[in-house]
Amino acid sequence: MIDYTIFGESHGKAIGVVITGLPSGLPLDMDAVAAEMARRAPGQDKTSTPRKEKDAVELLSGLFEGKTTGTPLCGVIYNTDTRSKDYSKLKDMPRPGHADYTASVRYGGFSDYRGGGHFSGRLTAPLVFAGAVAKQLLAQQGIAVETRISVLGGVEDPTAEQIDAIILAAKADCDSVGGAVSCTVSGIPAGFGAPDLGENAEGIFAKHLFAVPGVKGIEFGAGFGFASMRGSQGNDPFCMADGKVQTVTNHAGGINGGITNGMPVTFRVAMRPTPSIAKQQQTVSLSGGTNEVLVVEGRHDPCIVKRALPVIEAAAALAVCELMNI
Amino acid sequence: MIDYTIFGESHGKAIGVVITGLPSGLPLDMDAVAAEMARRAPGQDKTSTPRKEKDAVELLSGLFEGKTTGTPLCGVIYNTDTRSKDYSKLKDMPRPGHADYTASVRYGGFSDYRGGGHFSGRLTAPLVFAGAVAKQLLAQQGIAVETRISVLGGVEDPTAEQIDAIILAAKADCDSVGGAVSCTVSGIPAGFGAPDLGENAEGIFAKHLFAVPGVKGIEFGAGFGFASMRGSQGNDPFCMADGKVQTVTNHAGGINGGITNGMPVTFRVAMRPTPSIAKQQQTVSLSGGTNEVLVVEGRHDPCIVKRALPVIEAAAALAVCELMNI
Amino acid sequence: MIDYTIFGESHGKAIGVVITGLPSGLPLDMDAVAAEMARRAPGQDKTSTPRKEKDAVELLSGLFEGKTTGTPLCGVIYNTDTRSKDYSKLKDMPRPGHADYTASVRYGGFSDYRGGGHFSGRLTAPLVFAGAVAKQLLAQQGIAVETRISVLGGVEDPTAEQIDAIILAAKADCDSVGGAVSCTVSGIPAGFGAPDLGENAEGIFAKHLFAVPGVKGIEFGAGFGFASMRGSQGNDPFCMADGKVQTVTNHAGGINGGITNGMPVTFRVAMRPTPSIAKQQQTVSLSGGTNEVLVVEGRHDPCIVKRALPVIEAAAALAVCELMNI
Amino acid sequence: MIDYTIFGESHGKAIGVVITGLPSGLPLDMDAVAAEMARRAPGQDKTSTPRKEKDAVELLSGLFEGKTTGTPLCGVIYNTDTRSKDYSKLKDMPRPGHADYTASVRYGGFSDYRGGGHFSGRLTAPLVFAGAVAKQLLAQQGIAVETRISVLGGVEDPTAEQIDAIILAAKADCDSVGGAVSCTVSGIPAGFGAPDLGENAEGIFAKHLFAVPGVKGIEFGAGFGFASMRGSQGNDPFCMADGKVQTVTNHAGGINGGITNGMPVTFRVAMRPTPSIAKQQQTVSLSGGTNEVLVVEGRHDPCIVKRALPVIEAAAALAVCELMNI
Repeated sequence: MIDYTIFGESHGKAIGVVITGLPSGLPLDMDAVAAEMARRAPGQDKTSTPRKEKDAVELLSGLFEGKTTGTPLCGVIYNTDTRSKDYSKLKDMPRPGHADYTASVRYGGFSDYRGGGHFSGRLTAPLVFAGAVAKQLLAQQGIAVETRISVLGGVEDPTAEQIDAIILAAKADCDSVGGAVSCTVSGIPAGFGAPDLGENAEGIFAKHLFAVPGVKGIEFGAGFGFASMRGSQGNDPFCMADGKVQTVTNHAGGINGGITNGMPVTFRVAMRPTPSIAKQQQTVSLSGGTNEVLVVEGRHDPCIVKRALPVIEAAAALAVCELMNI
Repeated sequence: MIDYTIFGESHGKAIGVVITGLPSGLPLDMDAVAAEMARRAPGQDKTSTPRKEKDAVELLSGLFEGKTTGTPLCGVIYNTDTRSKDYSKLKDMPRPGHADYTASVRYGGFSDYRGGGHFSGRLTAPLVFAGAVAKQLLAQQGIAVETRISVLGGVEDPTAEQIDAIILAAKADCDSVGGAVSCTVSGIPAGFGAPDLGENAEGIFAKHLFAVPGVKGIEFGAGFGFASMRGSQGNDPFCMADGKVQTVTNHAGGINGGITNGMPVTFRVAMRPTPSIAKQQQTVSLSGGTNEVLVVEGRHDPCIVKRALPVIEAAAALAVCELMNI
Repeated sequence: MIDYTIFGESHGKAIGVVITGLPSGLPLDMDAVAAEMARRAPGQDKTSTPRKEKDAVELLSGLFEGKTTGTPLCGVIYNTDTRSKDYSKLKDMPRPGHADYTASVRYGGFSDYRGGGHFSGRLTAPLVFAGAVAKQLLAQQGIAVETRISVLGGVEDPTAEQIDAIILAAKADCDSVGGAVSCTVSGIPAGFGAPDLGENAEGIFAKHLFAVPGVKGIEFGAGFGFASMRGSQGNDPFCMADGKVQTVTNHAGGINGGITNGMPVTFRVAMRPTPSIAKQQQTVSLSGGTNEVLVVEGRHDPCIVKRALPVIEAAAALAVCELMNI
Repeated sequence: MIDYTIFGESHGKAIGVVITGLPSGLPLDMDAVAAEMARRAPGQDKTSTPRKEKDAVELLSGLFEGKTTGTPLCGVIYNTDTRSKDYSKLKDMPRPGHADYTASVRYGGFSDYRGGGHFSGRLTAPLVFAGAVAKQLLAQQGIAVETRISVLGGVEDPTAEQIDAIILAAKADCDSVGGAVSCTVSGIPAGFGAPDLGENAEGIFAKHLFAVPGVKGIEFGAGFGFASMRGSQGNDPFCMADGKVQTVTNHAGGINGGITNGMPVTFRVAMRPTPSIAKQQQTVSLSGGTNEVLVVEGRHDPCIVKRALPVIEAAAALAVCELMNI
C-alpha cells in the first residue's frame, strides 16, 4: 500500500520524500511532475513570496529506465535560496499562529527554528512531488483530482481578478487572508472504504489533508450544510443512469457509511490565513517569561490558498491511492 | 498505544469492542460506564427511536479484581430487541442516505443487511463503552471532554426546548434533522502531536470522529471561519497567564502545526440528518436495474444529534488517548 | 488485510478473537473448525492435561447466513472448567520458565495471575479458531498448511509410539519435554513479500509464529544448517519443470530476498518444554525479596508439542493470509 | 516510535534511510557512526569484495547544531564505484540463491537488476547507519549490543585465524561459506514487550533481523536446543542477586511470555552462504523457458558473516528501540 514520509527543514541541506508501496512499471512523466511543482513554486507573481527556488526534484532511487521499480522511491529537493539570518532572533519569541512554540515544547528546544524548519510551507514541495506521482497512477485508472478556490477572504466563489485583488489588498495592509478550497475526485468506483476506524473513506482523506500545513477543517459533500437540512433534503435519491446506479444529488460527497458510492468524491478544506504578517503582534519571551511585541520580518506569502491548490490535490491523490490500495 | 476494534451487527447475536493497549491498574467505575451508556441509549423520550435495549455491557476479559489488567479488554452487549422482519424486504432496494448500496458493493452482497448490520447506529454503543473507559483514564490526568449541540436544523445554539421542538416537528413531518456538535477537550498539555502524516493532532481527532456514523465534517477552532479572516484576526497572540504561556484567543483550537499548545482543544463536527425517514423516496432495484419508490418502515430516530453527544465524546476521548499515547 | 486480536484470561469469563479484514462470502465450515479445535483440545489422552473443556466457539458477529460478511468476525469460547484455587498462592512466587514475573513487572501487578491469565496456553484455542478460518480461505486458493513433530526430547523424526513414550516418561519423572515442529505451506505462488522491513516473507511468518506461547526459534529451509554449508551446496539451482520455473532443491524454504519463489515454504520452530513441572524448583518471593522453593501444583501438560501442531498451522495460515493480502 | 525506511539500488544514484520517531536532542557522534560504517565497508582485506566505496553518510535532514531535531532524519550514501556492465547480461538468467527471479516476478520485470538493485547487500550500509544512531540512543540508557561469529562453515566458535582461513579456502574454491552470529543485548530492564501479536519481544527482534539480507533463522536463548531439553533443564530458576530478581541460567534468552525479564537478551541468527559464487551453476532463461548454465561474474564476497556483524547489531539496536519505545 502506498505510504510516504516527508523529511527536511526549510534551511537545511535538502527536503524530500520517500514513497513506499508504489506499483512497479509506472512510466513517470517528469515533465508533468515539473508542471505540478511549478504550480506550487513561490515567486510566480506579486501575490506570493519573492523567495525563488526552482524546486527541481532529484530522484535518488525507485526509478529504472524511466519506470517505477516498485521499491522505495526517494525524491530530493536541495535547498539553495536560504537566508537564515532573517530568522535567528525569533528563537525565543514564538510567532503567533506558527508552530514555533509547540515545536519548542514538543522537541525540547532542539528543532530547527530557521524559517519554520520542518514546519515550513516549503515542505509541501515534496508533497506535491509525491502527489504528482500519485496522480499519474490514478490517471491510468481514469481518476482525476481537481480543485478550485471556493472562498477567499470571505468572498464565495471568487474570480481570478477578485482573488488577486483580495490578496494584494491584504499585502498592502501588511496582512494575509484565509480561504477554502473545494476538491472533486472523479472516477473512483463504488465500493472502496469501510465503516471501521482507520478504514473509512472520510477518515483516510482527512488524515492526508490535515497533514497539509494550514488546513483546519474538512467537510464532505454538504458537510456543515447538513446541520441546516432535513433528511428529505439531505438524502440522495438513487436512480439508474447510463446503465448504472447513481444518485440524483450528491450531498453525501460520494461516500456512504465510509464507502465510496461511485459518484464524485467532493470535499472542501478550510485554510487559515498565513500566520506570517508584517504587523506588530503580541507574543512572549520563552526564556524570560515576559510579554513582548514582535514584528515578523523576512519574506512571506500574503496568501497560501492559491499555491495550496496543487498541495491539496497531492494530498487527495495520495489519499485515493491509500483508499483504493493502489 | 490504545486502539480498539468494534464488532457486531444490529440484528446479530451481540455487538462489542476489544480495546488494546490500555494501561493496567485503572479501577473501572462501572456505574460511570452505565451512565454514559444511558446517555446514548434509545427510547428515552419521544425524540428518539422506541427500540428499547438496556445496553448492559458484559466484560469478557481485561478486568481483574475491578481493575484493568493491561491485556485486551473485551466488552459485549447482547442484542435482544431485534425485529428482523422490518428489514427483510429492503435487501434489493437500497435506502437513500444509508450504506445499503455501498455495503452491497463493498461486501459483494454478503453483508448483514438487517437493520443496517455493521453500519447500524447501534454500533455506537460499544464505542460509547470504549469512550467511557478512555474518559476515566483521562480524568486521572485532569483531562475532560465536553460536548453541546451547536446547531440543530439550522438553528444556532438551540436551547433544550428548541431542540425538542425541532425534533418533534421533523418527526411530525415524517422527516429528520441534522446538526452540529461542538466539543471541548480541556487539560491536554502542550506538546502532543507532530506535523507529519498520521501524527498530527487534527488528523488523529479526525480519524476517530469520522468513524462515527453520520459525521460528515470536522473543523478545529475557527475552522471554516478562517476563510473569512485575515491573519491579524486569526492569529492567537501569546501571553503569560498563570505563570505559563497561553494564547489570548483560541482560533487555532488548541493546535499549532499539528501539536497541542496547551489551550483547550476545540472542534465542531457536522452530523447529517438521520437518513431513515418515513417519507416516500426514490431508489432503484439492484437486481432489476429499475427505478423504484420506497417507504422505509421500522423504528427510527428523527434526530441522532442528541444521542450522539456521548458518542462524539467517546471518539474524542479515544483520540486523546492515542494522541498522548496513554 | 487480515488481522486478529486475541483476548481473554484462562480463568476469566471467556477467551476469544476478533478477526478483521476477512473477505466476504466465505462459507464457513463449522465442522472443519470444530475438528481443528479438537486437535488442540486438552484431555484427549494420558499425554495431555486432564483439564477438559469442549472449546465450543460461539460466533458473535461477522457471519450471516453461513458466510463471512467481511466485517469483523468475533468468536468466543466461554471458560467453564476453572479451578482458581489451584493458583492463588502463586501470586508472590513466580514459576520458573513462566511469564508470572515478567507479567508482574509489565502490568504493575495488575495482571490476572490465575492459571497464567492472558499468558495461558489456553489462549491458543481462539488462535486455532482464527487459523481454521484462515485455512478455509487458503484452501480456496489451493494452499495447504501441514505440520509434523520433527524433534521431541532430542529424538529426531520420532514415530507416534516414540512420541507417546517420550511424553509419558517425562510425566513419570514429574517433568516435561520440548521439541521442534516442521511446517510446510504448499501452493503459494511466486512473488509475495518484499525485501523491506515488515514486508519480507520470513519476517511475516516469524511475527505470527512468535505470538505462539513457547516458540523460541524459527528457521526457514536449511536454516541453521546454512552455517555449515558452502554456497555451492546451499544455492538452489533453477530448472524448468511442469512448464514453470522451479528449483532443484529447496534450501531457501521457498523464499529468496523475502519474496516467495513458488516452491513450498518450509520452516521449523523450536518449542520449549512446558515450564509447569511437578518437581521442586527454585524461585523468589517478590514481596519478601528472598529465595524460596516452589512446587507447582495444578493440572499440566507434560508436553505441548503434540497439541501445538494445529496452533503452529493456525499461525502459519494467518501469516500466509497477511503475506498474500487475502 | 522509531521506524525506518531504507531506499536505493546498488547501481542507482544513491542509497539511504529515513528514520522517523527519533527523540530530539541526541548529540550524534559522527565519528562513532563512521567507525560502524567502516566495520561493514567492503574492501578491507582479502576476505571481502574488492569493491571500494567510502560509504560516507551525508545527512540531509533531522540534525541541527549537531543534535537530532526529533523530525525525520535522512542519511544518504552516494554510489560511486558502480560497474553496471558486469550485470547487464544476467537480466534473463536468474542467479541461484539470489532474489533475481523473485524480484522479477514480484515487480513485473521492472526492478533494477544491476548488482542486485534494491536487494543488494550494499543496502545494509544505510541500515548500519541507522543502527549506529540507535546504538547511541541505547548507550544513553546503559544498553549495549554485541555480536560474535558463533559458527562459520560448520566450525563452532571459530578463532580469528580460523575465520580467515575458512573464508580464503572457500574463495580459492570459487565458493562461499555460511555461518551463524550470536548477539547479546545487555541492559534492557524487565517489563518490555507483551504476549500479543506484533508486540512480543521475540517477534520484534525477528522482524528487524529478517530484514537483513541472508538471515534465514533466529533462535532466542537455548532456541532449538530446547527441543532436546526437559523442563527441569530448560527452566531458569529465579534468585535474588545484587538486590534484584535474576535467573540462575538464561535459557530463555532474557524473554518470558514475550516480555523481557531483565537478563541479557541473547539470540543467534543463521546466515546463508553468499549466493554469488564463481562456479558454474544451473539456471533457466526466463524468456526462453529453457534450462541454462551460468557463471556469475563481477566482484563478490566469499563470506558476508564477518561484515554482517555490525549489520546484525544495527538491526538488533533498532529492534530494542522499537521494543522500548525509545
